[in-house]
Amino acid sequence: MRYSTIPLAQTIILHCEAKGVQNIVISPGSRNAPLTIGFSENSFFKCFSIVDERCAAFFALGIAQYLQEPVALVCTSGSALLNYYPAVAEAFYSNIPLIVISADRPSYKIDIGDGQTIRQDDVFHRHIGFSVNLKQDVSHAVEKVKKYAPYLITENTVENTQEKIQSFNDTSLNEAINLAYAHNTPVHINVPFEEPLYDFIDEGTLQPNIVFNQEKDLSSSLDIEHLTSIWKTAKRKLVLVGVSHPNSIDQEVLDILADDPSVIVFTETTSNLHHPNFFPSIDTLVAPIEKLDQKDNLFRKLQPEILLTFGGLIVSKKIKAFLRQYKAEQHWHIDEIKAYDTFFSLSHHIKMDPNRFLKLILSDVYEENTKGNYRDYWQNIKENFRLKRLEYIHRIPFSDLLAFYYIGSSVPRDYQLHLANSSTIRYAQLFNWHPSIKMFCNRGTSGIDGSTSTAIGASVYSKKPTLLITGDLSFFYDSNAFWNGHIRSDFRILLINNGGGGIFRILPGKEDTPNFETYFETVQNLDAKHICNLYGFEHTEVSRSKDLEDALKFFYEQSDKPKLLEIRTPRLLNDKILLGYFDFLSSDFINH
Amino acid sequence: MRYSTIPLAQTIILHCEAKGVQNIVISPGSRNAPLTIGFSENSFFKCFSIVDERCAAFFALGIAQYLQEPVALVCTSGSALLNYYPAVAEAFYSNIPLIVISADRPSYKIDIGDGQTIRQDDVFHRHIGFSVNLKQDVSHAVEKVKKYAPYLITENTVENTQEKIQSFNDTSLNEAINLAYAHNTPVHINVPFEEPLYDFIDEGTLQPNIVFNQEKDLSSSLDIEHLTSIWKTAKRKLVLVGVSHPNSIDQEVLDILADDPSVIVFTETTSNLHHPNFFPSIDTLVAPIEKLDQKDNLFRKLQPEILLTFGGLIVSKKIKAFLRQYKAEQHWHIDEIKAYDTFFSLSHHIKMDPNRFLKLILSDVYEENTKGNYRDYWQNIKENFRLKRLEYIHRIPFSDLLAFYYIGSSVPRDYQLHLANSSTIRYAQLFNWHPSIKMFCNRGTSGIDGSTSTAIGASVYSKKPTLLITGDLSFFYDSNAFWNGHIRSDFRILLINNGGGGIFRILPGKEDTPNFETYFETVQNLDAKHICNLYGFEHTEVSRSKDLEDALKFFYEQSDKPKLLEIRTPRLLNDKILLGYFDFLSSDFINH
Repeated sequence: MRYSTIPLAQTIILHCEAKGVQNIVISPGSRNAPLTIGFSENSFFKCFSIVDERCAAFFALGIAQYLQEPVALVCTSGSALLNYYPAVAEAFYSNIPLIVISADRPSYKIDIGDGQTIRQDDVFHRHIGFSVNLKQDVSHAVEKVKKYAPYLITENTVENTQEKIQSFNDTSLNEAINLAYAHNTPVHINVPFEEPLYDFIDEGTLQPNIVFNQEKDLSSSLDIEHLTSIWKTAKRKLVLVGVSHPNSIDQEVLDILADDPSVIVFTETTSNLHHPNFFPSIDTLVAPIEKLDQKDNLFRKLQPEILLTFGGLIVSKKIKAFLRQYKAEQHWHIDEIKAYDTFFSLSHHIKMDPNRFLKLILSDVYEENTKGNYRDYWQNIKENFRLKRLEYIHRIPFSDLLAFYYIGSSVPRDYQLHLANSSTIRYAQLFNWHPSIKMFCNRGTSGIDGSTSTAIGASVYSKKPTLLITGDLSFFYDSNAFWNGHIRSDFRILLINNGGGGIFRILPGKEDTPNFETYFETVQNLDAKHICNLYGFEHTEVSRSKDLEDALKFFYEQSDKPKLLEIRTPRLLNDKILLGYFDFLSSDFINH
Repeated sequence: MRYSTIPLAQTIILHCEAKGVQNIVISPGSRNAPLTIGFSENSFFKCFSIVDERCAAFFALGIAQYLQEPVALVCTSGSALLNYYPAVAEAFYSNIPLIVISADRPSYKIDIGDGQTIRQDDVFHRHIGFSVNLKQDVSHAVEKVKKYAPYLITENTVENTQEKIQSFNDTSLNEAINLAYAHNTPVHINVPFEEPLYDFIDEGTLQPNIVFNQEKDLSSSLDIEHLTSIWKTAKRKLVLVGVSHPNSIDQEVLDILADDPSVIVFTETTSNLHHPNFFPSIDTLVAPIEKLDQKDNLFRKLQPEILLTFGGLIVSKKIKAFLRQYKAEQHWHIDEIKAYDTFFSLSHHIKMDPNRFLKLILSDVYEENTKGNYRDYWQNIKENFRLKRLEYIHRIPFSDLLAFYYIGSSVPRDYQLHLANSSTIRYAQLFNWHPSIKMFCNRGTSGIDGSTSTAIGASVYSKKPTLLITGDLSFFYDSNAFWNGHIRSDFRILLINNGGGGIFRILPGKEDTPNFETYFETVQNLDAKHICNLYGFEHTEVSRSKDLEDALKFFYEQSDKPKLLEIRTPRLLNDKILLGYFDFLSSDFINH
C-alpha cells in the first residue's frame, strides 16, 4: 500500500475504498500520479489502464452497466477530460454511475498559458448529476510560509484552514459518491494538485469523515389504492418497456401481466423481458398499420386508456409516433428518479422500483379483471406477422435483414449481447431473441461513438461470454476500443459491413447522388481484417448465406484469440429489402 | 444550387457565403441534412466528409490554422457535438477560428427521452468565444395552425413573429461569424430544425441581414513614446516568442532585434522565427544551468529587465520556471486580444499586431542603443553548447535523441512540419531546423489527441508537402485521422515508436515497476504496419542509425501513396540518453 503525501489524494482514495468503489479506469498522465499510485498500489482496487480517454470512459460505462455500481475514471489535466464527455452524456441519460476524477493544476496556474491546462471545473455542466472543484491542500504552501515568513502564521490558523479544507472536501466527496450510488448518475470531482506529485508514504495519515447514504422511502406519498382502482377498471392498458436489466421484474409479476387480456406488453429488445404473450418486435406490428388506409381505425383500436412505462429510452420511432398522436388518457412512468414526458401525456411519475410497484398494483387485480379482447385481437395479428416474416425471409437474397435472421438463431444461450446503435439495434428489434440472452445498447444518447468500448468493459466481469453486433461505421469509429489489455478470448464481434451508414438509405432523404453517398451514407471500403491483425483478433469474412451459416457454427467455439466475423452485405440492396419487408407485412393485413 | 425550404438553414448558408467561410467539414447525420445539402450543393463551398467528429474537428482546425481563416464544422444532434470538444478547447487556447454549427431537435423534443438528443446549447461554455441557440422558424407551425385553427392567427402576427426570429438569428450569426474572424476564436451556433428535413428548392427565398466587422484601432490608447523610451534605456531585454505563423514578422524588424546587443531573442521551435543571432533550443541553454552550483549567479546574469513576449503558448518548462523565479521588472505581451500572465509579472498587455508594434518601437532605437554584453555573453555559451551537442550526438547509440538528429537534417526545404505533443515537440526543441521549414504543434491544450488529424487538415491546401513527426501514443490515439478521402500522396509521417509514453521515463516520477509501465508509460507493442495497410500508406520500419539514414534518403521522394516511416527506438535507453545529454552539456559549463 502506498499513498501520496498529498492529503487530498489520500482523502479521495479512502472515500472510494470506504464506499466500495472498486473499479478504477486510469488514463496515463503525470498530474494524476498521486491518484494513480494510490489506487494501483492498493489491493482493494481493481485498476484498468486505457490510453484513449474516449474509450476509457465507455469501457468504464460498460463495467458500471454490468455490475450496476459506480466505476471511477481517473485522468490527467487538460483535454484528456474532454474526451470523456460522450460517455458522460450517455451515462447521464442511461442512468449509469460514473465517478469522473480529474487531476488539475492549482487554480493560480489556470489561464496563464501553462500546458495541458484548461478550465476543468464544471466542464460537463449540462450532463452531470453533481460536480465539485475540490479545494487544494494548504500544507505545501504553509511549509513555504513557515520557512520564509513564520511570523505570518500560527499553528492554530493553519490547522483551522486545513481543517476547513478537509471538511469541504469530505462533504463534497460524500455527496458526489453517495449521489452516484443513489441516483445512478455520473458525477465529476475535479482535483487540483500542487507539485511535488511524486512523494509517497506507506501508511495513510488521514481519517476522512465518511458519511453513507440514508435510505429513503419515496413510496409513502403514493396513493396505491387509487391507482389500483384506476388500473382495475381500465379496459385497454398498454405496458411499454425500454432499456432494463435482465431479471429486473419477478416472473410472477410478468405472469400476471401476461395473463391479463386487458393488457398488452410491448417489449423492446433492450428490455430483457420475455413472455410468449408479450409483443416484442414492435415495429413489425406498428409499421404495417402506418401504411394502411384504415390506419386511423386500427390505431384507435390499439390506443390505450393507460400507458404504463418503465425502463430506459425507447428505440422504436414508430411506437413513439403512434403514442404521441393517439395519446393515452393517462401515462404512468415508474422510476425512482426520472420520468420523461416522451409521449406528451405523462400524468403520473411513480417514484418506486418498477417491480415493487407492479407487485402492489397487481396483487388483487387478476380475479376482478375487466375482460375484453384488447390483447387477443392484437395477439392474432402478431402471430400472423410472425409467419409472414418467415415467409418473407425465405424469399429474399443475402442482405442485412437476412444476416440478422441467421444471427438471431445462432447466439448461444445466456450470452451477453451488446448492440451498436443505428441500423444494428433497429434490425435487432425486428427479430425475437432467446429469453436467456441479455441485451444491451447505449440508448442514452444513441451515439455510434462508444459501443465497442462499452461491450468490452461489460465483458470484463461477465460470467458468460459477450457478443457485440455492430455496423461498419460504429466499428471503425470506436476502433481504439481494442487498445487495452482486457479483451477476453471468448469476446466475439459480428460486424455487418454494408459499406457505409446503411441507415441513411432507409431514411426518407435517400437519393442516388454522389453527394448523398459522400455526406450521408459516407461510403467506405475499409477492411476490418487490418484492425484484427493490429489487435490480435481472429478474422473471418463472409458474403453469402451459406458461408454465414457455416461460419456461425464454429464462431462461438472456444479459441485462443477473440474473434471477429465480418459479414459483407450488398450496400445498394439492403434498403430495398427492408422497405419491402414492411410492404409485404401490410400487403394482406386487411384480412385480419 | 439547392436550399432547404427551412428558412433558418438558408440563413446560415447565406451568412457563411457572404462572410467568405468557404471550408465546411461535415459529419454524417440526418438532423443536419438541411445544412449538408445546402453546403454541399453550392459550388461556393468546399466540403469535406469525416465520420469521426473528434477527427473532423481537428481536421478543420488544421485547415483553419493553415489558411488563417474560419472553418465551419457541421454535425448532427446528440453526442456527435461532444466529440468536437477536444479540438474546440485547442482552438480556444490557440486562437484558431472554428465555427461549430450543430443541428438540434426543436426545444420541446429535448429531455423527453428522444434518441440522439442532449442539451446542446452552450455545451462548450468554458472554452468558446461565443455561443448561441438560434430560434426555430415558426413557418411549419404556422402552416399547421392555419390548417386546423386559422382563426387563431392573423397574417400580421405571423409575419411579425417570423420577422423577429429572423432578426434574432441574423444578429446572432453576424456576431458569431464576425467574432470568429476578429478574435480568432471558436464559436458555437446551435440550430434547432423541425421535420420535415428533406424538402428542398433550387433558389433561396431569403435576404438575410448581413453585417460585417467594423475595423477597430486598438492602438490609440498606447503610449508608444513612453514604451520606446523604456525599451531604449533597458540594458537587458529578453524577447521570447511562442507559437507563431511563418513570416509574421518582417525581416527588417528581425534584423534590428538581432543586431541589438542588449537583446536576446529566445525562439521556440513553433515560433517560426529565425536568425543566426537568435537563441533556438532554449532548453539546451537553460537546463544545464539548472544543474550547476553557481546557477543563481548565472540565472541573475540572464534575468531580463524587460521581458517581451508574443505568439502562442510556450513549450519550454525550463524557461517558464526560470522566468517565474527570476522575474523581469516588466513583462510586455503583444497580442491584439489576449495576454496570459504566464510568468507572474505581466505589466503591459500591448493590444496590437506584434509586427506593427515592433516596427514602431524599434524605428529609432538602434543608433542610440545602450550597449552591453548581455547578448554576447550568452552567444558564446550558445555556440559552445552547439558544439557539445554535436560531440554528444556522435557518442550515443541509436535512440530518440539520435533519431531526431538525423530527422532534423533530412527534412526538405519549405516543408510544412507538424509535431505531435509530449516527447516529440520536446525533442524537436533541442535541435535547429532549417528556417524555410514551417513548424506547427497544437500547444493550446498540448493534448496528444488530435495531432495527426490537424496535420492532415493543414496539408489540404498547402503548396508544399506536409510531414508529421509523432510518437506512438499520439499516433494510435488519433489513428482515425486517416479515415477520410483527403490524404495527399505526398503526406509523410515519421513515427518514433519507443513502445509507450517515453516522456514518463524522463519525468521525475519514473520507477522500474510493473505499475509504472502499466499506468504511466502504458507500454504497448502495436505495429503501425496494420494501420498503414488499412488506410493505404506505404510502410517502412527501421531500428538502427544506418537504416534510418538510408530510409530518409528516399522517404521524401514522390510516390503514389502517402508514406509512414516507423522508427523503433530502445524504450529502456531513451531516458538515460536524454538525461545524460543535459549532464554532458553542464559538465564543463564552468569553463565559460
